[in-house]
Amino acid sequence: MSRVVYVNGEFLPEKEAKISIFDRGFLFADGVYEVSTILDGKLVENQAHLDRLGRSMKELDMAPPCSMQEIEEAQQELLKRNPTQEGGLYLQVTRGAADRDFLYPDPSTKSSLVMFTQARPVIEAPSAKRGLSVIFQPDIRWQRRDIKTVALLAASMAKEAARAAGADDAWMIEDGKVTEGTSNNAYIITKDDVIVTRALSNKILHGITRKAVLALAKEEGLRVEERDFTPQEAKEAKEAFLTSASTFVTAVVKIDGQELGDGKPGPLTTRLREIYIDFARKSLS
Amino acid sequence: MSRVVYVNGEFLPEKEAKISIFDRGFLFADGVYEVSTILDGKLVENQAHLDRLGRSMKELDMAPPCSMQEIEEAQQELLKRNPTQEGGLYLQVTRGAADRDFLYPDPSTKSSLVMFTQARPVIEAPSAKRGLSVIFQPDIRWQRRDIKTVALLAASMAKEAARAAGADDAWMIEDGKVTEGTSNNAYIITKDDVIVTRALSNKILHGITRKAVLALAKEEGLRVEERDFTPQEAKEAKEAFLTSASTFVTAVVKIDGQELGDGKPGPLTTRLREIYIDFARKSLS
Repeated sequence: MSRVVYVNGEFLPEKEAKISIFDRGFLFADGVYEVSTILDGKLVENQAHLDRLGRSMKELDMAPPCSMQEIEEAQQELLKRNPTQEGGLYLQVTRGAADRDFLYPDPSTKSSLVMFTQARPVIEAPSAKRGLSVIFQPDIRWQRRDIKTVALLAASMAKEAARAAGADDAWMIEDGKVTEGTSNNAYIITKDDVIVTRALSNKILHGITRKAVLALAKEEGLRVEERDFTPQEAKEAKEAFLTSASTFVTAVVKIDGQELGDGKPGPLTTRLREIYIDFARKSLS
Repeated sequence: MSRVVYVNGEFLPEKEAKISIFDRGFLFADGVYEVSTILDGKLVENQAHLDRLGRSMKELDMAPPCSMQEIEEAQQELLKRNPTQEGGLYLQVTRGAADRDFLYPDPSTKSSLVMFTQARPVIEAPSAKRGLSVIFQPDIRWQRRDIKTVALLAASMAKEAARAAGADDAWMIEDGKVTEGTSNNAYIITKDDVIVTRALSNKILHGITRKAVLALAKEEGLRVEERDFTPQEAKEAKEAFLTSASTFVTAVVKIDGQELGDGKPGPLTTRLREIYIDFARKSLS
């Protein structure tokens, strides 16, 4: 690996990319992040990611490490130093390094900013062609899932449980309803061709791709219902899919062992993926 | 500051104490920790902390960074290099550094181990003489609070809310009952001199000091009830206190603005603190 990584104003070989063990991101999960997908060497919907980053910091009273324009300039410089056709640009802000204390440190403490790129296929992702299998897992995460923090252990555990069960991902259940996937929003399409996904609240991440896909679906004249759905409804759905910045629209073809339809990505999901890809290409920066 | 800090086998000046930005402790809160109190230059109940560390790693399928004996030797060496009469020795294990993925990395990935000391008064802690004030906060943490992970943001937010309200700490409420403090177990003493604290489950940390204090209280012939209690019961209590490795037994003298008794640490709490300090001194290693 020969990536160049950004750490607090410096561009470093990844082996030298280090932060203090006193960083609150390391000691308290006191950090927030965003992943902008790289397509055609540029960033998809990056402004929306920076806006959400701003909201996450604000919800946690976390000082920005620098201006949003400086963050964007660093992103572009990082991309230049790591030419990547398709993949992701990860960005994390933490409350910075201070001697360990549950109380937030002195406001003069400088927030940390780190960024790195990851190359992987986006348009021709194998998972998108094949479709994904998901299992159900209890949603044991905290109650502010609307803030995109690095406290991701529960999501990581759920995804690992999916792998152990021979599945690709887990849809999480709370109070008998699906909340979302481990790193994506969850959707079903009913027998009547209604797209159903959970309404926004502190129970789920306010997905940037979710927002765009729902708007695009409505523009296409498709019916959308933002409401809770049950695991049983999911297993009886005509089609299912998930959205995330990393996976765009990706079909779910098997839920809790139950194949949907013929077990292949369905026509509506496939169309939504194409429509979103067109939109993503128009959003590049 | 001139501390020597332990990072993956090396003893380093704290300014050089760094870990990879790809460490899963930094990216996913995929780490566990323990704090052993330092008293008379030695560690209080350290074996119990190492046992709990082992349980936390096991619950998360996290490989130990080395043997428990090697961890203990590193703790003793760190203490030698940072002579400390009273304070704490912090220890954190994470799943190590790997390119970012929600799935756990290859099992050959080496876990990270970091340690540092913090000096502060223990026996004559000002908070113990004065007693603490607590407010109530909703418990928004995840559902595996029995695992001592570094996903501490919710607890940090609650403690910060307490400071903003002019209080010392927050007792957290879930389903109308007190779970625990932000970094301690919570107790009330009823008008009938019964010590009440929540029973062990995944809802609270299985405190090492809690276990010892309850056993010592029973040996003293005091009545103990392990059950949920309400915020209202807490405000009407005769005395209240909290326990943690860092604070031992510390009186709570004001709850949600309501002073308990004369607003000073009560006699039973004071006695329990003395009994625990005797016990702690016998446990030194």
